[in-house]
Amino acid sequence: MTKKHNIILQPSGRRGQADEGMSIRSAARELGVEIESICAENATCGKCMVLVEAGRFEKYNIESSRENLSPVGNEERAYLERRPKLLKDKGWEIGQVRLSCQAKICGDVLINVPEESRGNKQIVRKSARDRAIEVKPAIRKYLVTMSPPTLERPIADWERLAKGLETSMGLVRNGEENLPRWYDLQIDYQCMRTLSKTLRDAKWSVTVSVWNDKEIISVQPGYHEDSYGAAVDIGSTTVALYLCNLRTGEMLAAESEMNPQIVYGEDVMSRIQYAIDQPDGLEKLHKAIISTLNKLLKQAAKTAHIKMDEILEMVLVGNSTMHHVLLNLHPKDLGLAPFVPTIHKSVDIKARELGLHINASGNIHVLPTIASFVGADTSAVILAEEPHKQDENWLLIDVGTNAELVLGNRKRLVCTSTPTGPALEGAHVEYGMRAAPGAMERVHIDETTLEPKYKVIGVEGWNTDHAEFTGQVKGICGSAIIDSVAELFRAGIVDSRGKFKKDLDSKRVRQGESGWEYVIAWKEETSIGRDIPITQQDVRQIQLAKAALFTAARTLLKRMDLQSPDKIILAGGFGSYIDKEKAMLIGLIPDCELDNVYAVGNAAGDGARIALLNIEKRNEIDAVTRKVERFELPTDPEFQNQFMLATSFPHMSEPFEHIAHLIPNRKTDPLAKNFMK
Amino acid sequence: MTKKHNIILQPSGRRGQADEGMSIRSAARELGVEIESICAENATCGKCMVLVEAGRFEKYNIESSRENLSPVGNEERAYLERRPKLLKDKGWEIGQVRLSCQAKICGDVLINVPEESRGNKQIVRKSARDRAIEVKPAIRKYLVTMSPPTLERPIADWERLAKGLETSMGLVRNGEENLPRWYDLQIDYQCMRTLSKTLRDAKWSVTVSVWNDKEIISVQPGYHEDSYGAAVDIGSTTVALYLCNLRTGEMLAAESEMNPQIVYGEDVMSRIQYAIDQPDGLEKLHKAIISTLNKLLKQAAKTAHIKMDEILEMVLVGNSTMHHVLLNLHPKDLGLAPFVPTIHKSVDIKARELGLHINASGNIHVLPTIASFVGADTSAVILAEEPHKQDENWLLIDVGTNAELVLGNRKRLVCTSTPTGPALEGAHVEYGMRAAPGAMERVHIDETTLEPKYKVIGVEGWNTDHAEFTGQVKGICGSAIIDSVAELFRAGIVDSRGKFKKDLDSKRVRQGESGWEYVIAWKEETSIGRDIPITQQDVRQIQLAKAALFTAARTLLKRMDLQSPDKIILAGGFGSYIDKEKAMLIGLIPDCELDNVYAVGNAAGDGARIALLNIEKRNEIDAVTRKVERFELPTDPEFQNQFMLATSFPHMSEPFEHIAHLIPNRKTDPLAKNFMK
Repeated sequence: MTKKHNIILQPSGRRGQADEGMSIRSAARELGVEIESICAENATCGKCMVLVEAGRFEKYNIESSRENLSPVGNEERAYLERRPKLLKDKGWEIGQVRLSCQAKICGDVLINVPEESRGNKQIVRKSARDRAIEVKPAIRKYLVTMSPPTLERPIADWERLAKGLETSMGLVRNGEENLPRWYDLQIDYQCMRTLSKTLRDAKWSVTVSVWNDKEIISVQPGYHEDSYGAAVDIGSTTVALYLCNLRTGEMLAAESEMNPQIVYGEDVMSRIQYAIDQPDGLEKLHKAIISTLNKLLKQAAKTAHIKMDEILEMVLVGNSTMHHVLLNLHPKDLGLAPFVPTIHKSVDIKARELGLHINASGNIHVLPTIASFVGADTSAVILAEEPHKQDENWLLIDVGTNAELVLGNRKRLVCTSTPTGPALEGAHVEYGMRAAPGAMERVHIDETTLEPKYKVIGVEGWNTDHAEFTGQVKGICGSAIIDSVAELFRAGIVDSRGKFKKDLDSKRVRQGESGWEYVIAWKEETSIGRDIPITQQDVRQIQLAKAALFTAARTLLKRMDLQSPDKIILAGGFGSYIDKEKAMLIGLIPDCELDNVYAVGNAAGDGARIALLNIEKRNEIDAVTRKVERFELPTDPEFQNQFMLATSFPHMSEPFEHIAHLIPNRKTDPLAKNFMK
Repeated sequence: MTKKHNIILQPSGRRGQADEGMSIRSAARELGVEIESICAENATCGKCMVLVEAGRFEKYNIESSRENLSPVGNEERAYLERRPKLLKDKGWEIGQVRLSCQAKICGDVLINVPEESRGNKQIVRKSARDRAIEVKPAIRKYLVTMSPPTLERPIADWERLAKGLETSMGLVRNGEENLPRWYDLQIDYQCMRTLSKTLRDAKWSVTVSVWNDKEIISVQPGYHEDSYGAAVDIGSTTVALYLCNLRTGEMLAAESEMNPQIVYGEDVMSRIQYAIDQPDGLEKLHKAIISTLNKLLKQAAKTAHIKMDEILEMVLVGNSTMHHVLLNLHPKDLGLAPFVPTIHKSVDIKARELGLHINASGNIHVLPTIASFVGADTSAVILAEEPHKQDENWLLIDVGTNAELVLGNRKRLVCTSTPTGPALEGAHVEYGMRAAPGAMERVHIDETTLEPKYKVIGVEGWNTDHAEFTGQVKGICGSAIIDSVAELFRAGIVDSRGKFKKDLDSKRVRQGESGWEYVIAWKEETSIGRDIPITQQDVRQIQLAKAALFTAARTLLKRMDLQSPDKIILAGGFGSYIDKEKAMLIGLIPDCELDNVYAVGNAAGDGARIALLNIEKRNEIDAVTRKVERFELPTDPEFQNQFMLATSFPHMSEPFEHIAHLIPNRKTDPLAKNFMK
């Protein structure tokens, strides 16, 4: 029997076992992770480069090391040695970076697949709303030309520049009030240090970058029109950085990396625990994220053909734990009752204080947090979607392993959060996987024959559209899991309590190894040679997740004295893929006009960009978040009760008008009394 | 013949030769530097500790090292080993610190005599004006007691504190307007990092230190009333630090050290040159001063029994070169035409940016510079003396190797500077020395007999008051040099051109080794076994110095369209010792009512303390210095001509009404036509 080894693929989080001697690329494909290649695995195109992470990864219970792969062969070495600049730029070394078509597995490994090697990039759907960002950056540039000092007029360099700048600001921004007088202008200390030399080298004609109309943070010789900034969304799993031109608003580069903290804990609670348990835990977590941010900055600057010190500002968002760790604040009290962050308000610090390699005088702006589990990422979502400017009541839901919810209008906003577990993202579901080629993404079950049809990522149409279907199905991604559960319910295969009916006339409904299950794909349709079922356990996972989410939404609605929201905004990649009708059918989201349910993609990233490009938005979100009312679910007296009721499909005591026609047996099911009309 | 070695004593700057085998203490005494001792040189009292500086000192053309002293003997070692805490606190090691009664000279050495070992401390006379400083510090402390966070009210730590602080500030400062709202308060990033832990350790009752009514820079558990700050005057030769209680204004410690930059150049021009010539020149100069400031801070904190991080602010002054080097700004352009500083305006920076070991969140305030050679020390003198609040025209003169002059009133101030050379401080004068025991400090010459009488520091009365005078005279300090030259002129021994008359009936007027001279003390009256004369060369030195100073003053008076100032303020130690009538007689200072000439001592240090204790004074001096008009003497078309006229006594074309009666031969001297009335 062939020996098996564990392989974990990041940033997708996909994990599984691979036969000894199998190449990383093949093993990854089996796990639904496509890695690029155009040289037929001949070690010549380099498209399939991956990184081996070394260390002990407690979460996966593996010890990964370079030695757990076959040694770097001659052809692979020859290829890598032809790319010294790439390796240097990325900070990779041979052995750490491998051609995944060549490296064979001979032990447990955790592999990081960099953005450029990923086969099928996720496509995030466009937002329902137009998001034209008004560009009003914190940094403005002015050309200042001075007469050189003379013995008769030996005024100091700074005052000479500030007086010239006062004139330039006035000329450029004719009519604007409240421009500072020259003697009220400030200059950042590090910028001051090189001022005299720069002015003389530049022959007294320089471009000055002014932050927030008050502080000079850069003085460049000659005329420069553009300045640059970076917006960053620090997710628990993935860190995404967008490099923008601050004058035009144009996005010049988008880079992402796995969050390196993942080796210290998969979710935020385990990272908080790590920081509590290890004396240098916070230090390690903090340094890891700073170093990844610097790597992303370097890559983005390279892509955009600019120098890193031309980047004059960064705006960062992330959940409260990511926020604290970024700022080197101990996250202990985020994880212990009564769950309190160190600070809500947005933070401005000099890049050099955090060791971020943009211009040393540049500003780092971190958006405000709202609560211990409603972080700066939610602030960014609010900024992007603007519920605080609506007359209607909007419900914003950002789903991940944790879900944050914000409800309200221009007068009042309430928020809460709830753990939902990883089931909604396709993890901890028996055949769950991330959205990738080979993943089922849509499922439909005929309510008469109980036969399914499905769509697979990378294959056109439904499986039943093909005369001979060879879909090579590998698993089920989040959207298809919700589809499946909704369809099992709609077709009457599971009841409103989520239990499989055992008396149905279908060979697909059967008792499997771990209990009752419904087979969606027979093994002939798969690439893994096994039937792919949805199990009772999978249905339970979804029930728990959706009950948590629904209870959170209901709690907020109750606080606002509402039965249902006017609009539901689903933020994050997850929301973009799910079928909103199915989501409503299982009671994942509250009842609402289906046309008023929107998926807006990475709204947190959008919000970070908005704050980067428009300084007024920073004050706006500070003021809004100051007024958001926070509710901790466990403090709600009805929470447990509500939660139990919410585990049923779609809900034990809620009338879901907009999907009522889809509810099976609604005349006979005693639990479906709400739908009996 | 006994071998001789060079010995330099700092901070006095006294230098000379000592016989091989002589103890440092004895050699120092010969040079007029008294070192304490109460154990009769038995190596048991430790009062005579001195430091050997190692390195090459270009200015003195010597190479100093520990090896140029006799090895540390058993008794000396035994003593020093009994003082481990002292050595540790001061950062001294055995061999570097020596008992000067034990260490014998066997090579060239540069010795630093620490404050505590100095025998006769200089006494600076009190200012003519009362200087009651209104205490209005930048830092205020408030006790804030909060209710702990709960699940129902899980507001973040910072917002909880800020809201409590808003209340506390309002309660304490009832009626004051413009107190910031809690959400406008800032917290320094380094202070934020430990906030959560401090609040919990303190059980939600803390003392908050607020800087400038807007930024929290310290949060201490429990109730604390006092906070501390340090005012520093960085002189080219000596650095003086005053530690103050910011609530009461009380001075808790005064510490001084030699400016360590002296090894890189004695005066500012040679230090600027060093920074230009050496690639790491500025870095070395900067690190040297920072490290000395940290040493002084440590000593002061120890004296006052406080912790260094309880010091929350520093205010520093110094000439423009000291200012630039402190701030790590390259001083190059200070020394090259058109002589321009990097910045005039006062600078606020975080202590951690400069590596100063007060509280990391503490502020460093550096007073504004006025011109390349009119630095932050002059700003401090203005702040202390307040010419800008007068109706009269005041002339401020701060004399050192360079003299800075400020003239004017509440409507207009003008300033300039001039090099005066070291003669006025007793250096570069044949028998010149600093004010110390054995130094002549007053001289009178009888105009009939041409016989002198003099006073010696450490001896009561005039030498002629003693039946048998054993004054052990060693040299002539600055005040006596001016006395001597003035008396030589008044008695008609030198003419108004400064030339010795050769036909006088006195054995004291004679041709010496280097030309004509007047013997003030015969060798029997001295401890050095040689006659002590004032030479033609010495008179010339004083003529050049006083001409420079007078021309500068006259230039300013002309710019203000004045004949003479209403009041003359002499700042610095020098001004405190000279006889103002004599100074006027040789034309060192312009003609003025003698009662209106004041010596105010270390006004720069006073000004630094004023700015430390009263934040409003910082804006005041920024505004005042912005309006001061600067004049560079070399740009004045009449400068050379004026300078030549000013070399004569008291001046070739100025009527010195207030000392006219003292002018000899004023009826017959063709140069004295101004006084013929």
